[in-house]
Amino acid sequence: MAKEKKLVESITSMNEDFAQWYTDVVKKAELVEYSNVKGCMIIRPDGYAIWENIQKELDRRFKETGVENVYMPMFIPESLLQKEKDHVEGFAPEVAWVTQGGLETLQERLCVRPTSETLFCDFYSRIIQSHRDLPKLYNQWCSVVRWEKTTRPFLRSAEFLWQEGHTAHATAEEAEERTIQMLNVYADFCEEILAIPVVKGKKTDKEKFAGAHSTYTIEALMHDGKALQSGTSHNFGDGFARAFEIQYSDKENQLQYVHQTSWGLSTRIIGALIMVHGDDSGLKLPPRIAPVQAMVIPISQRKEGVMEKASELCDMLKAAGIRAKLDGSDKSPGWKFSEQEMRGIPIRVEIGPKDMEQNQAVIVRRDTREKLVVSLDELGERALQILETIQSDMFARAKEHLEMHTYSAETYEEFKQTVAEKPGFVKMMWCGDEACELKIKEDTTATSRCMPFTDESLGEVCPVCGRPAKTLVYWGKAY
Amino acid sequence: MAKEKKLVESITSMNEDFAQWYTDVVKKAELVEYSNVKGCMIIRPDGYAIWENIQKELDRRFKETGVENVYMPMFIPESLLQKEKDHVEGFAPEVAWVTQGGLETLQERLCVRPTSETLFCDFYSRIIQSHRDLPKLYNQWCSVVRWEKTTRPFLRSAEFLWQEGHTAHATAEEAEERTIQMLNVYADFCEEILAIPVVKGKKTDKEKFAGAHSTYTIEALMHDGKALQSGTSHNFGDGFARAFEIQYSDKENQLQYVHQTSWGLSTRIIGALIMVHGDDSGLKLPPRIAPVQAMVIPISQRKEGVMEKASELCDMLKAAGIRAKLDGSDKSPGWKFSEQEMRGIPIRVEIGPKDMEQNQAVIVRRDTREKLVVSLDELGERALQILETIQSDMFARAKEHLEMHTYSAETYEEFKQTVAEKPGFVKMMWCGDEACELKIKEDTTATSRCMPFTDESLGEVCPVCGRPAKTLVYWGKAY
Repeated sequence: MAKEKKLVESITSMNEDFAQWYTDVVKKAELVEYSNVKGCMIIRPDGYAIWENIQKELDRRFKETGVENVYMPMFIPESLLQKEKDHVEGFAPEVAWVTQGGLETLQERLCVRPTSETLFCDFYSRIIQSHRDLPKLYNQWCSVVRWEKTTRPFLRSAEFLWQEGHTAHATAEEAEERTIQMLNVYADFCEEILAIPVVKGKKTDKEKFAGAHSTYTIEALMHDGKALQSGTSHNFGDGFARAFEIQYSDKENQLQYVHQTSWGLSTRIIGALIMVHGDDSGLKLPPRIAPVQAMVIPISQRKEGVMEKASELCDMLKAAGIRAKLDGSDKSPGWKFSEQEMRGIPIRVEIGPKDMEQNQAVIVRRDTREKLVVSLDELGERALQILETIQSDMFARAKEHLEMHTYSAETYEEFKQTVAEKPGFVKMMWCGDEACELKIKEDTTATSRCMPFTDESLGEVCPVCGRPAKTLVYWGKAY
Repeated sequence: MAKEKKLVESITSMNEDFAQWYTDVVKKAELVEYSNVKGCMIIRPDGYAIWENIQKELDRRFKETGVENVYMPMFIPESLLQKEKDHVEGFAPEVAWVTQGGLETLQERLCVRPTSETLFCDFYSRIIQSHRDLPKLYNQWCSVVRWEKTTRPFLRSAEFLWQEGHTAHATAEEAEERTIQMLNVYADFCEEILAIPVVKGKKTDKEKFAGAHSTYTIEALMHDGKALQSGTSHNFGDGFARAFEIQYSDKENQLQYVHQTSWGLSTRIIGALIMVHGDDSGLKLPPRIAPVQAMVIPISQRKEGVMEKASELCDMLKAAGIRAKLDGSDKSPGWKFSEQEMRGIPIRVEIGPKDMEQNQAVIVRRDTREKLVVSLDELGERALQILETIQSDMFARAKEHLEMHTYSAETYEEFKQTVAEKPGFVKMMWCGDEACELKIKEDTTATSRCMPFTDESLGEVCPVCGRPAKTLVYWGKAY
């Protein structure tokens, strides 16, 4: 069988070639298929089901903070994109342009949205008049296009799926508060649901979003020690409001500019999920995000009663609130095991004639491969406990990995040596001058990931230039 | 206040100018805002919340039949679009073309998907090898673009949201079965959830989808007697499979072409929801689809205890499983009433000092304006009953309207007179010749809506040409 052949070929080992391992996993776990459209991916059912769970969980969290969903056009007229100077400079080089509609050439080019600040600003300028209209807390789930030259599934593709929240507020304080609030929503979601620990902080001016006053980020560390920017939250101040004339009359009937934010998280996070937790057998999904949490696999399934019992077990697990499935296909148990492992399903439940005699089943954890013999009388309950344990163990392991791979440097020599030899984050003080930031990038290819929310200090001076240090920065090589 | 002024201007009466009434409602119920992008609409929170409920309900029904969600690229290379002859002829004149990516001119134009048959076919040709890989039952929720000249919110816009299901099967029988199954999913959804009765049937060859073997449709009748095609399901036979070489090896190891279907329902259905149920006070939403089912409105809200009580009532309704909200703003009760009516919220719950004395509240039905005095001891329970009654009454009224406006014609003269004088469906026999279909359209502007699933016969001959009749057809003027 073509399919069987595909899976038994072992995937590349992570330590041998991490990039190839990643590509093998996204293909063999059937998350993604390449398409005929350059740089665009097809998200297959197992990949899309992960995205649906991410959407469900994040959407609920957004709505709890008062956010409402809307849908904006996918096209932006060129003149609209150009209204905010920094913004257009940041995005114009990487957008796709529609120049023909039907059989006619358009009078004005339309870009396919790379992000929708300009559309939301135009919308807000129409619907905001009074302080009673504020705040506006809108979000949309959509796809965006950025014309990238080198692409990788989930991590960087010409088109990707995301949500983009856009809010308008009466005061600067409120906007700043919302920016941080949404960063915390992302951070909590990543840690609680995806079991991915993150470093929260502010981007340097060089790394901030085109047109933003300030950008906050959550940074995660992949298994190979590279950083992945996993979600960002921007405070625009009143910059866009001035460019788009978004004004409201306050309680004293004075015209004021609104203060805005935007924040986004994309299918890129699925890349993080793979690269933080996966191993040489494939994907490893934290139970809370896994579309299938338990796979029931019958042993000697042709023996009388085995399939019926397996199906009964599947129902017991479902009744306990577990997303369970039964693999009743005619493949061998060994084959089914490696398929369940490749797909990262958190537990498998094995049941055969001998187990039946003893009124038990064997639960095997995907994360540790530990086998647990469980009485059928308490199957659902025990499986739930094991899933919770897996969830917290996976987070603990990822957290330990992050901590073990976060280094400090007090001199620039030490910094360069650490970056060269030890994959991970390197903390170092910084004077705040872009010249030092650029020098570090040139010397080491490491970029500033963020200025973390911490009082930690590693010294008084910037090790690069010797001038007084302003802040601590996390540096790292990044995806 | 700008906002108050906007709503008190009464909307155009339906009988005076139905098209203007529709435009007023979508704007004043804040479902849609026009955008800077020609022909594209902004779907506002109250509009999008309806779409989210439609998605939730349909998605659940799809998944119950085994369908899985995926995501395909939004671009189609021109050469891929051209692979199936009829398909490209049908769509090429109305697509938007991307010709530039970043700063470069593309070697091959990409069209923004108007529908994704070609992408799914290309995908299926890669992943289907064996009979074990079948069936494939995939769906995607996305936006599509069709370059329309004249546009109207929800009904016809350059970009709209929809779902498109695409399936591949081993046999022609299975494909036909799936086509009808999904048509029935649409019909049941419309009738049970949207309270919109539909006529199910097959499209004539002239009206079928570009590239389809046969197209099935559900047709709804709007308040003004015009028809709206509300969902379609297509059987492609093996036409696309031959063009895209989608073959599988059967159990005897022989190569066979797959048989395919596709089916879609779009934000257009929100237009139907408005035009089937609405009245001169605005929107009227069936309870099962309404984002807010009950609005609690305090009377004399500054009197002691009223706001607290209103909030308590809101909690009681929520505890009963009702999507309830409290309007605690400082607007007048009369203003709040008309706002609740404009937004189509199925019931409002009024509570004031006198009601409190008597331990009661007044429930007002949006559909009939009937007032019901309800004891607070059974508020949740009674509200639930009333919502169920509204749901079934709304369906019954729409059904009666459909039946009252469905006419029969036995001669062509009678047909022409009915079409001219009586808005609605007109049933008439047909020979099956496109010439007669074209003549009817030219003479009356009515088009064939569908050949219904019925044995009904109105005679032996086609009243247009006098030749033997093959089938009964529903004719009507359509959106």
